[in-house]
Amino acid sequence: MQSYQEMSREELLKEKTALEAAYRKYAASGLKLDMSRGKPSAEQLDLSMEMMNVLNSNMDLSCEDGTDCRNYGVLDGIQEAKVLLGDMIECHPDNIIIYGNSSLNIMYDTVSRSMTHGVMGNTPWCKLDKVKFLCPVPGYDRHFTITEYFGIEMINIPMLPTGPDMDMVEDLVSKDEAIKAIWCVPKYSNPQGITYSDETVRRFARLKPAAKDFRIYWDNAYGVHHLYDIDQDNLVEILAECKRAGNPDMVYKFCSTSKISFPGSGVAAIATSANNLVEIKEQMQVATIGHDKVNQLRHVRFFKDIYGMTEHMRKHADILRPKFEMIIDKFECELKGRDAGTWIAPKGGYFIAFEALEGCAKAIVAKAKKAGVTMTPAGAPFPYGKDPKDSTIRIAPTYPTLDDLKIATDIFVICVKLVTIDKMLESKSVQQG
Amino acid sequence: MQSYQEMSREELLKEKTALEAAYRKYAASGLKLDMSRGKPSAEQLDLSMEMMNVLNSNMDLSCEDGTDCRNYGVLDGIQEAKVLLGDMIECHPDNIIIYGNSSLNIMYDTVSRSMTHGVMGNTPWCKLDKVKFLCPVPGYDRHFTITEYFGIEMINIPMLPTGPDMDMVEDLVSKDEAIKAIWCVPKYSNPQGITYSDETVRRFARLKPAAKDFRIYWDNAYGVHHLYDIDQDNLVEILAECKRAGNPDMVYKFCSTSKISFPGSGVAAIATSANNLVEIKEQMQVATIGHDKVNQLRHVRFFKDIYGMTEHMRKHADILRPKFEMIIDKFECELKGRDAGTWIAPKGGYFIAFEALEGCAKAIVAKAKKAGVTMTPAGAPFPYGKDPKDSTIRIAPTYPTLDDLKIATDIFVICVKLVTIDKMLESKSVQQG
Repeated sequence: MQSYQEMSREELLKEKTALEAAYRKYAASGLKLDMSRGKPSAEQLDLSMEMMNVLNSNMDLSCEDGTDCRNYGVLDGIQEAKVLLGDMIECHPDNIIIYGNSSLNIMYDTVSRSMTHGVMGNTPWCKLDKVKFLCPVPGYDRHFTITEYFGIEMINIPMLPTGPDMDMVEDLVSKDEAIKAIWCVPKYSNPQGITYSDETVRRFARLKPAAKDFRIYWDNAYGVHHLYDIDQDNLVEILAECKRAGNPDMVYKFCSTSKISFPGSGVAAIATSANNLVEIKEQMQVATIGHDKVNQLRHVRFFKDIYGMTEHMRKHADILRPKFEMIIDKFECELKGRDAGTWIAPKGGYFIAFEALEGCAKAIVAKAKKAGVTMTPAGAPFPYGKDPKDSTIRIAPTYPTLDDLKIATDIFVICVKLVTIDKMLESKSVQQG
Repeated sequence: MQSYQEMSREELLKEKTALEAAYRKYAASGLKLDMSRGKPSAEQLDLSMEMMNVLNSNMDLSCEDGTDCRNYGVLDGIQEAKVLLGDMIECHPDNIIIYGNSSLNIMYDTVSRSMTHGVMGNTPWCKLDKVKFLCPVPGYDRHFTITEYFGIEMINIPMLPTGPDMDMVEDLVSKDEAIKAIWCVPKYSNPQGITYSDETVRRFARLKPAAKDFRIYWDNAYGVHHLYDIDQDNLVEILAECKRAGNPDMVYKFCSTSKISFPGSGVAAIATSANNLVEIKEQMQVATIGHDKVNQLRHVRFFKDIYGMTEHMRKHADILRPKFEMIIDKFECELKGRDAGTWIAPKGGYFIAFEALEGCAKAIVAKAKKAGVTMTPAGAPFPYGKDPKDSTIRIAPTYPTLDDLKIATDIFVICVKLVTIDKMLESKSVQQG
């Protein structure tokens, strides 16, 4: 396919006319499609409906150690839930605390506790003049919203195909004591679907931060969210790697079943070193008597064990794979060779990131919106909502039906082409002028 | 019955010998009884087992506005849960946010947010040299643990039969800008079972605090936890009263279904003014995508409406009433006229507070422990665990069976008598010496 860069002004104008006709047709048809939301489809939620039946009024709602799950008690989660989530994120159950329904909430609490009480005897962050977090970009907007809410300065770290730019990370954390943490989505990252390479994880574990209270916020949100059964990404387990590297306390690992069972009614957890757990539990016992054990029991009785969860994730994959493949196929077919942007075909996770030409993302998203397709706002995957290059667009294929998604993708592709052509025409007239 | 104070040394010694024989008999029988825990009995939990059946895999788990409760979304709770809990705490659903399973957690979050972000534009508490809370005593130990964790200074306020000593409250809050809040359990208070009088609530609503960001933490934990159907305490609704008094933003009202459905698997909420809600939601949308809507729906489908909840609370009362009455009867029968302590017969809630003679509480609790009866540690209902008079003992009648509770109460009464007699003998020898 011919690159738009190599096309003459006349060729571009001809192409534009044809695309505009197609665009107008879509725009006139009153569509309302949504590729903005990283949430499961109703079809995926149906996979977990049996969870509503696994507990009933004739059952003993005690867990294996005899604790009545209906009553108060058990601060850090029932043992069998720790085992299940431990298997899910490759950690020993002793390193896990089970929380309520939201891993985001655990991350917020972790930052908040560090603000008010500090980390392991170090000065509470609220008493410091400056606190900074490293933010691999593009990344997860809700991470950045937490840091912004607490007035923490955010420093962009470019994502490479291997994960965050580790030269930059190593350099910054070793020099600046104000840098207290880095946000990571290490597997099937949001939004690019990148899994950190073995070398990246090993370099993380061997960081020599200037700040004694530096922590890696390892949000393993998509750890078991593969699209394929064999062709899966592998992520080196960070807790064990940090221990080996002599940095056992440097990482907080977060996870949840939000996109496994029901978002909002799942189970979330943190895994970290024994030392960190002591500190976290000190706070927890002030903040709560315990989380929802009945829901923990419900999850354990539904999944039974990690094999049950793996089987369950296969069903999710069967629903998601065609959606991801359809989009990638359309990009390959319509955009490859056009020099109109780049993308990565992810092997898991919830998103595809489209890298438009510089300065085109906002215009593409706006154009799609006018034709009835809602995209995640351009800039959202960056701190303060500012994409310095205005080029990243996050595509969320999971929620719409495949049929809707096909139309939405067609419209998106047309918008990408139109905005790119306009940019080409503009640069040509600048060259001519 | 003769007062121990009026008995001669010989009479006291004779009484002591008889009591010691009874005590030794109990102590030798290897009992393990527990009157320390304010949690429902298994029999009470059984009342809510039908809740495990109200949702099943054949049902539509959408709420009334069509939202799929299984998926992400709805920050502040589904409307029908707001209506149910609104009816429960006599507030308009628009003034309510539904949270997760723990009202204690909401209180912790509220203090924590005030520390890091301040209240309505006022200086964050972490930036102030001194923050103080008023603590009506005896009170709820977990309230005091939160304030202590955040380094907030606690000032004891004596509880009167009408609620906190309002002369003292009015005086202190009007003079000291560092006083930012007061902890209240206004109905069937923990541990005394006192309900604040109408005048007390009106005086609360009319406070003129020196601190603009002063807030009343109104923990209405036992709002519907009556022991009787007609003979119920009434509490003036504080939100409306504050509005009438021109102080609409001065109160946060907390509640949960922890002791209505299942502790740990219930639904908690905050009710407050529109202005406060805006501020709270600003934080919430950073900290979470939403709470467990499926569990909200489960509660609504189980209780249906406030009438359903009232009927349900009657069943709780039927289980609890004999336990409370048995203890009060034994106190009346064994201790009345002895001048060995005082108590209030509560009409609801979860506790009875026994006021021993000054300096006797720790000794009574220790003596009971040796005979196999665990009580809440003396001092627990006070800030820093320090009862200045060493006289308050919290009795929790709900968890044990009635039969166990009878034995535990008998032992407790013997311990009260023995420790009181020892005190009398001691003072008599001081008098003689």
